[in-house]
Amino acid sequence: MSDLTLDPRAASFDLQHVVSELAAVRQRWREAQQRSTEPGGRELPSREALSDIVKGLRGALFPMRLGPSDLRQESEDFYVGHTLDSVLHGLLHQVRLELSYAARHDASQSEAKVDAHALHIVRELAHALPHIRELLDSDVTAAFEGDPAARSVDEVLLCYPGIEAMIHHRLAHRLYALGVPLLARLVAELAHAQTGIDIHPGATIGAGFFIDHGTGVVIGETAVIGQRVRVYQAVTLGAKSFPTDADGHPVKGLPRHPHVHDDVVIYAGATVLGRVTIGKGASIGGNVWVTHDVAPGAQVTQARSQRDESVAML
Amino acid sequence: MSDLTLDPRAASFDLQHVVSELAAVRQRWREAQQRSTEPGGRELPSREALSDIVKGLRGALFPMRLGPSDLRQESEDFYVGHTLDSVLHGLLHQVRLELSYAARHDASQSEAKVDAHALHIVRELAHALPHIRELLDSDVTAAFEGDPAARSVDEVLLCYPGIEAMIHHRLAHRLYALGVPLLARLVAELAHAQTGIDIHPGATIGAGFFIDHGTGVVIGETAVIGQRVRVYQAVTLGAKSFPTDADGHPVKGLPRHPHVHDDVVIYAGATVLGRVTIGKGASIGGNVWVTHDVAPGAQVTQARSQRDESVAML
Amino acid sequence: MSDLTLDPRAASFDLQHVVSELAAVRQRWREAQQRSTEPGGRELPSREALSDIVKGLRGALFPMRLGPSDLRQESEDFYVGHTLDSVLHGLLHQVRLELSYAARHDASQSEAKVDAHALHIVRELAHALPHIRELLDSDVTAAFEGDPAARSVDEVLLCYPGIEAMIHHRLAHRLYALGVPLLARLVAELAHAQTGIDIHPGATIGAGFFIDHGTGVVIGETAVIGQRVRVYQAVTLGAKSFPTDADGHPVKGLPRHPHVHDDVVIYAGATVLGRVTIGKGASIGGNVWVTHDVAPGAQVTQARSQRDESVAML
Amino acid sequence: MSDLTLDPRAASFDLQHVVSELAAVRQRWREAQQRSTEPGGRELPSREALSDIVKGLRGALFPMRLGPSDLRQESEDFYVGHTLDSVLHGLLHQVRLELSYAARHDASQSEAKVDAHALHIVRELAHALPHIRELLDSDVTAAFEGDPAARSVDEVLLCYPGIEAMIHHRLAHRLYALGVPLLARLVAELAHAQTGIDIHPGATIGAGFFIDHGTGVVIGETAVIGQRVRVYQAVTLGAKSFPTDADGHPVKGLPRHPHVHDDVVIYAGATVLGRVTIGKGASIGGNVWVTHDVAPGAQVTQARSQRDESVAML
Amino acid sequence: MSDLTLDPRAASFDLQHVVSELAAVRQRWREAQQRSTEPGGRELPSREALSDIVKGLRGALFPMRLGPSDLRQESEDFYVGHTLDSVLHGLLHQVRLELSYAARHDASQSEAKVDAHALHIVRELAHALPHIRELLDSDVTAAFEGDPAARSVDEVLLCYPGIEAMIHHRLAHRLYALGVPLLARLVAELAHAQTGIDIHPGATIGAGFFIDHGTGVVIGETAVIGQRVRVYQAVTLGAKSFPTDADGHPVKGLPRHPHVHDDVVIYAGATVLGRVTIGKGASIGGNVWVTHDVAPGAQVTQARSQRDESVAML
Amino acid sequence: MSDLTLDPRAASFDLQHVVSELAAVRQRWREAQQRSTEPGGRELPSREALSDIVKGLRGALFPMRLGPSDLRQESEDFYVGHTLDSVLHGLLHQVRLELSYAARHDASQSEAKVDAHALHIVRELAHALPHIRELLDSDVTAAFEGDPAARSVDEVLLCYPGIEAMIHHRLAHRLYALGVPLLARLVAELAHAQTGIDIHPGATIGAGFFIDHGTGVVIGETAVIGQRVRVYQAVTLGAKSFPTDADGHPVKGLPRHPHVHDDVVIYAGATVLGRVTIGKGASIGGNVWVTHDVAPGAQVTQARSQRDESVAML
Repeated sequence: MSDLTLDPRAASFDLQHVVSELAAVRQRWREAQQRSTEPGGRELPSREALSDIVKGLRGALFPMRLGPSDLRQESEDFYVGHTLDSVLHGLLHQVRLELSYAARHDASQSEAKVDAHALHIVRELAHALPHIRELLDSDVTAAFEGDPAARSVDEVLLCYPGIEAMIHHRLAHRLYALGVPLLARLVAELAHAQTGIDIHPGATIGAGFFIDHGTGVVIGETAVIGQRVRVYQAVTLGAKSFPTDADGHPVKGLPRHPHVHDDVVIYAGATVLGRVTIGKGASIGGNVWVTHDVAPGAQVTQARSQRDESVAML
Repeated sequence: MSDLTLDPRAASFDLQHVVSELAAVRQRWREAQQRSTEPGGRELPSREALSDIVKGLRGALFPMRLGPSDLRQESEDFYVGHTLDSVLHGLLHQVRLELSYAARHDASQSEAKVDAHALHIVRELAHALPHIRELLDSDVTAAFEGDPAARSVDEVLLCYPGIEAMIHHRLAHRLYALGVPLLARLVAELAHAQTGIDIHPGATIGAGFFIDHGTGVVIGETAVIGQRVRVYQAVTLGAKSFPTDADGHPVKGLPRHPHVHDDVVIYAGATVLGRVTIGKGASIGGNVWVTHDVAPGAQVTQARSQRDESVAML
Repeated sequence: MSDLTLDPRAASFDLQHVVSELAAVRQRWREAQQRSTEPGGRELPSREALSDIVKGLRGALFPMRLGPSDLRQESEDFYVGHTLDSVLHGLLHQVRLELSYAARHDASQSEAKVDAHALHIVRELAHALPHIRELLDSDVTAAFEGDPAARSVDEVLLCYPGIEAMIHHRLAHRLYALGVPLLARLVAELAHAQTGIDIHPGATIGAGFFIDHGTGVVIGETAVIGQRVRVYQAVTLGAKSFPTDADGHPVKGLPRHPHVHDDVVIYAGATVLGRVTIGKGASIGGNVWVTHDVAPGAQVTQARSQRDESVAML
Repeated sequence: MSDLTLDPRAASFDLQHVVSELAAVRQRWREAQQRSTEPGGRELPSREALSDIVKGLRGALFPMRLGPSDLRQESEDFYVGHTLDSVLHGLLHQVRLELSYAARHDASQSEAKVDAHALHIVRELAHALPHIRELLDSDVTAAFEGDPAARSVDEVLLCYPGIEAMIHHRLAHRLYALGVPLLARLVAELAHAQTGIDIHPGATIGAGFFIDHGTGVVIGETAVIGQRVRVYQAVTLGAKSFPTDADGHPVKGLPRHPHVHDDVVIYAGATVLGRVTIGKGASIGGNVWVTHDVAPGAQVTQARSQRDESVAML
Repeated sequence: MSDLTLDPRAASFDLQHVVSELAAVRQRWREAQQRSTEPGGRELPSREALSDIVKGLRGALFPMRLGPSDLRQESEDFYVGHTLDSVLHGLLHQVRLELSYAARHDASQSEAKVDAHALHIVRELAHALPHIRELLDSDVTAAFEGDPAARSVDEVLLCYPGIEAMIHHRLAHRLYALGVPLLARLVAELAHAQTGIDIHPGATIGAGFFIDHGTGVVIGETAVIGQRVRVYQAVTLGAKSFPTDADGHPVKGLPRHPHVHDDVVIYAGATVLGRVTIGKGASIGGNVWVTHDVAPGAQVTQARSQRDESVAML
Repeated sequence: MSDLTLDPRAASFDLQHVVSELAAVRQRWREAQQRSTEPGGRELPSREALSDIVKGLRGALFPMRLGPSDLRQESEDFYVGHTLDSVLHGLLHQVRLELSYAARHDASQSEAKVDAHALHIVRELAHALPHIRELLDSDVTAAFEGDPAARSVDEVLLCYPGIEAMIHHRLAHRLYALGVPLLARLVAELAHAQTGIDIHPGATIGAGFFIDHGTGVVIGETAVIGQRVRVYQAVTLGAKSFPTDADGHPVKGLPRHPHVHDDVVIYAGATVLGRVTIGKGASIGGNVWVTHDVAPGAQVTQARSQRDESVAML
């Protein structure tokens, strides 16, 4: 069969050359990063592993709603126990990876110390789960009461991206507090990718938090949010600028995001920047830009004149 | 081998305690929700099941473009028939689940009634599919003609998130109209998660609708949109406020979102709130905030002065 | 067992009718599109296939970070070579599909020509990979240096949606330049769906580009961006309007999106429209709307007065 | 691109014709079987479903050896409970299918009766599991003690096809006794396919049964086997012939396979046919053909002469 | 963390050396086989692909029993048509691979010829399917009537390994007859692995063939079997020896396996060797060794004396 | 909806009781086995893991035939290296599990020793792969030359169960020799389940070994087989009896299976028992039973008289 056209498998890509060039670029990068060439390598935490872990924790937190569809109430505890056992071990491995990575330059950290530390963190998370469930119940209730379109708390739990984001956040925040910020960030980014809601795991958020629609919401690391707060899509609670020290480096650890008190509502597209205080019960109108404190109970809206101008142009 | 370090599998998480605490929280929640403790439980509609159903319907609607890659035109009808058979049965199960859930407190709903009702709904949806395909063809044409970058209608169908959102919406809207709002919402949220476009299944949208880019678009439940309308990313067609009755409860069923007439264009970031009317052929500029009616053919843009001010600050 | 209730499998959907109606709609569409009825059909490039290809290329570009978790440095080249071999063949098939589709009305394109052209494109892409890796290294470094919260370059690579978007864009841009715009668009939309960042594959972006948060960012086809530029969420680099020729058709090929020079920062929600120039080192404030050139080093913010008005309304 | 060779997708198989012919054959078969043409059809038990159910039961019976590899002893009960819950529900569905099928011509069987019957069967099986585990422990011990090559009971459980066959048989036998012979047969055939050991689920087998190697073993429906019996590969415990009634039909329900008493050993390739009795402690040599009773303690071997003849032919 | 034990990922296997040695062995083999070193390679038919194809054909032949569990009779033709379309295209690819492989040294075979030949073969197979279904119906009936334990034809179809083997054989035999012996062999080996029944695809087998138990059955290439024949486990229909030509090479194409006429029964373990004739209605006893013709209606059993001797040894 | 029939999910299985009973049986077993109740448990090697490892090694040994179907010869080494890297690490984990299990009562075995030992074993296996490939090439050649029906060496490699068994055996034998008999046994049982060929990993088999058909072949642990030996289905190379020591325990380590010299052929169903010697070039006829030495070149067949008797009974 001599006249067959070229077999596609015969196509040559000069792979050896490309592979060598890629190795050379990696080598340059590693030298620039002053990384020793380790023969083995070092495993990092895995986004896919975290995704499975969060799915398991969701099911363990809400077994009859987010667990397996054929679960019966009689067997809830079996399911919860078995799922936690499996998921917490997976998490233990991920925590170890982050702690080992963080300790890579620290000779005082023995493997045994890392193991004990990792076990401590996972146990703490496990014991925090009942409280996390309570907080999420309050979020579900807030959504149900805050949205006239919601027909039942079950619908809220099944459908609302804001709830999905808060399940992730409340787990991520605990991981952040327990000292594994990389895992926390990975969990937060899972929610970000799925919902378009970007909450830094460091943000402190009280009970009964409701995010409606949600796409484009950004909440920064040092934000503090009270109870029963409601925000809409595209709301930003951000930082204005970073104070720098004498050398021009950003000073770490300073609160630089807003402090939002209880019962505040922030409408779609509003931007609140810097460590400002939004007083209890205040309301921030859509698309408003706020860089100063807002008094309790105040209602901030955009200047009327601009509205009129817009409409005047008809 | 006595000196082995602790087997990771020996790590104890005190699971029995955590499981009990979680059961206690669930119990409190159920009591607060006045839910009887049912031994069995009750299955709810499933997001994953809906996702598979929508994928099947997409393929049945556009077999040569969104069906299996090796499909031949000669066999289209076999594929369409087999896929519909499988997918509609899956949907029948989901519809039953929603109807049973909705009827959980209604003694007049026998299982047979629920079954008959579910079958009716799925049949109606099946018969609506040809019309839905026609509408989607008009959306594809609108995108192709509205975007100078589009090279072919096939590219539009394969790549454009706005089309993906409309495939979901036109199915979700029909489910909503047929009386299964929870399924409708789940379908809408599938599109929301994938595209960042959040269209309530209740929204009524005419033929030839084109959403460009799309991230951050929000369209509310009672919005009515005419034919050949075009919107860009981050456009909101929302509600201003909810009229309340004497007891302070929101009055349901009132139109509270915009009515957008034929041939309107709304540019990126514009916000239109309340039951205002945007007249035929009007154009709403980027980032404009509209809370009043707009006359047919009018062009609304932001106040010039603000623009100038901005630029004046260079 | 005569008294069993109706077997759900006995439910009839009148499928034959629905299938026929759908066939009729497809027929009308094909006639409207003046498509001959081909007995076979024509395979189009596949989003799923592209997704697998991009995953493989990510792993080949960053084997120890985005490759398999158990990879050892000693075996990197085996992994990179094997992965490229597999992935580039998959890409070769997809490139062929796009080229064949594009050539469907062009009698001068023999199959052999298409094959040779496809092979050329894939080889070019393969040889561009080392340079793409260098550019991505500069993006990672920019993110690490630009975000005080970043703890390591590894964290940036694992977590930041802006990096994910740039991995896709730098591949998509090369595919676009090599003449397969549909594949390029599919790659771009994969990133768009995952990150909410919508960069047209035609956009030219220099080294060290950093997108923070990212949801809602839109960058148009003819945008040109220099080195070390930083943008935040919801920034739009768009077109103002399309110049039309004598017949009212948009004139193609004209630059219609901004040219952003080196070291510019554009804050969240800012909109820059048209072929304006943003000079080296300029800074565009949040939510600002820019339709004119901005001088090098200038700082554009919104009119102070509006801010004050907003706050004055407390 | 007019000169492209024929697209493989354009190949026509004249499918409509084949489909019609196949429908005609099915129709003829159904008429020959006097089956009414039901619009719906009737679901039968599924081999794949049974396979998953048996896998689950294996894990629940031996959680630390055949359950998930990361299971910890502390969590065994959670795992066992959750697995049983899931698997027994799957089994309930399969039992229902068999009972409904069996009742298809029996007007006295209401759906409620079938449901209650199915639930009874699954409950009985569930309560039999501890006893089944005890029997299997005795089989494992017998294999460990009977095979000098066995290094540990764990190795026996992991590797020995005879144990795999007995796990299936002890479950299948119970299903058979509970009145679901089709499910029982499916379970037996799963073992047959995997191990080449073909034990009819009706066979009654005492504790401590050991099958070595196993390929080709066949044990018939009415065989009765005592305790501590050992058989090797290719042993048949079969029927000689079927007694027929006046009309020439086989008489059902008569014992027609061997009764093997305690402590018997049957070597490879031996064939024992009919309702013969093999007395306690007897030994049947390799390839021997037995159709008469064997006394307790007897040792049956092939005629010496044949052996010698064979060797004499050298 | 300097005292960590060796990272398992750091284990070195001296891979480069092993890879080189393996390449050297391959090279020696290829030289010994006088294979040119082709840059591309040549794809062979795939066992996995054939497995999927056979699964699809099983479903298309018996849609309500071996097709998807939720299939309804109303939609059978859609399922059958869609499945055949998909499966026959897969087969077309495999047929092409075998024909191309067979033609690798034949300059007269153009690619177009191979394509046309492959299409012809697949079409022929497609048109043979109704007849294959009829033959399989006769096999199912034979098993149902031949086994007193069989409760229904459905049980036979679901459970009996002999039926599974015949589904594979009747397809394999047709492929063999159509000139793709490698594909035929792969199909036969799929059944062999699953059932322990080894039927050469060349064997000619009439309607109503029933294999009981089946493990260890071997039927050779030139065997011819009439109608309504029944065989039990471990029956061999083999060749005695290969006639050789003047050079000592086996003479191909001569019938060398038994010809078994209608209504013969061959009991377990019997061996029939060479081109002997077993006359209509004959019966061959268990473990009997036959190398001569057997007259119609004869009953062959083992010499009585040996039996007696065996038992006499008690 | 009060009159709904019982939700199947409400079916109660009294699970808590079953779970407790199963726990009690496990406890009794552990006490009988004198196993301490460990809180963690101990992971054993996994059949599934071994199955994946063997699949990978098959591909690495025969990349163009048993590797991925799209592999090109140019990239063989990349594929082989990457596959070995992944598979050998998986094997390292399994070897560690077996060694740890074996050392569970041995205080002299530190974890570090176990790790070093495991690494040594895997390295040795890796370096043995080229030799294993050479042996397998000789087996393929033997099958091709020994079976007149074989059309090419590629067909032999793809289809013949005897080759599949030998790929497993040659790997298993090496693992056995390296001191991990449990892994070796698991690999052997994978082949046994798939092919019905049961070769103990301890058996020593020379080059050019060919097993035809194969179902029912059993080859014992201390069997020694020379070069170019051929066996057919259902051949047993077994032990006669176990010599026992003064206490009646089997004496371990004595050769108890046949020694088969070069160029021997053993036909179907033959049984050779004990440490007998089958001389070079001998031939053992079908179904013959051999318990004495056979001289070189001898041809052993069954006594003629029995044959004649059988036929005489017609």
